[in-house]
Amino acid sequence: MGAGRRPGKPDTRGAILDVAREHFVEFGFAKTSLRGIARDAGVDPALVHHYFADKHALFLAALSISFDPVELVRRVASEGPDNVGHRIITTALTMWESPMGVTMLGAMRSDSALFGVFGPYMVEQIVKAAMAALQITRDEAQERASLMQAVMTGLVFSRYIMCVDPLASLPRELLIRDLAPILQHIITGDLDPRRARR
Amino acid sequence: MGAGRRPGKPDTRGAILDVAREHFVEFGFAKTSLRGIARDAGVDPALVHHYFADKHALFLAALSISFDPVELVRRVASEGPDNVGHRIITTALTMWESPMGVTMLGAMRSDSALFGVFGPYMVEQIVKAAMAALQITRDEAQERASLMQAVMTGLVFSRYIMCVDPLASLPRELLIRDLAPILQHIITGDLDPRRARR
Repeated sequence: MGAGRRPGKPDTRGAILDVAREHFVEFGFAKTSLRGIARDAGVDPALVHHYFADKHALFLAALSISFDPVELVRRVASEGPDNVGHRIITTALTMWESPMGVTMLGAMRSDSALFGVFGPYMVEQIVKAAMAALQITRDEAQERASLMQAVMTGLVFSRYIMCVDPLASLPRELLIRDLAPILQHIITGDLDPRRARR
Repeated sequence: MGAGRRPGKPDTRGAILDVAREHFVEFGFAKTSLRGIARDAGVDPALVHHYFADKHALFLAALSISFDPVELVRRVASEGPDNVGHRIITTALTMWESPMGVTMLGAMRSDSALFGVFGPYMVEQIVKAAMAALQITRDEAQERASLMQAVMTGLVFSRYIMCVDPLASLPRELLIRDLAPILQHIITGDLDPRRARR
């Protein structure tokens, strides 16, 4: 590619990422638009699309997340409902305790606005993808997603960001053993005990 | 009481509360001392004791909490293990949705350091009181308290402070129905399925 055909200055991608980060923190994932980012970065919207496939890809890049959590949870969930609670908690703990996860948590600890944007993303995109992959009916999905949201938000925030004991120092194996059946119940169990007896 | 016997200037109590709030936010509940607060407020430690029965009372006053959550959870838990999950979630939601709870949540939303001090307090003092009132053995208490910590922190933080859907708009009755058996399992259930089959 000749110099005359370069799509932007060398720091254009970085400038887009900086503006994107600000927008995601200020407006959240759902209300951020690529058009608004392009405008505030002073570039053509086509240039944003040149660097990033879609809003989701731009979001992950802006938060320095080098893998796709939605794709990961979709893969884990699509193996079916048997033992999905165990697979989800194992995958989540493995991710948060990986070098990538530790870096993300460090960033969220030092800048709480990042957790403010990742938290809702985790719920809106990741939990939603899990529900869809498990073919949970729409009216039950809200309820099961809410319970999953409570457990996963509390786990990440309290164990990894605030680091509050006893959760912060509970051995990983014990946490997996204890949370697997709780998540399994939340995802596939009968939530209404009266209905179960009928 | 004559003017000459007044234990401090009219704003002494307020000055102690201001310093106490700073100390609790900076050092957390466990590491804050009445002696340190007295020193930084420039008053005699005896004066702190004159106004506040103990550190716990001073903590509640500093956070403008006009009831004792530890006493409340102790009362709820001491009715015994049957249906304790239902009683705890009903009491917690009633408290957070009362005028007092709404005021506390508003303060935590506008000053996240307050959640940083109340979160650990909730776990260290309130969950511990529940475990003790239910006579849960010491080695199991850490494990059950960790799971309760994950659920309750996630519930308060995500539903009431960050206000993230779907948890934030799930009807209260549905949340009570769904979380009661989960909390019951966390508090009294068999956490080790292999042990349960033996």
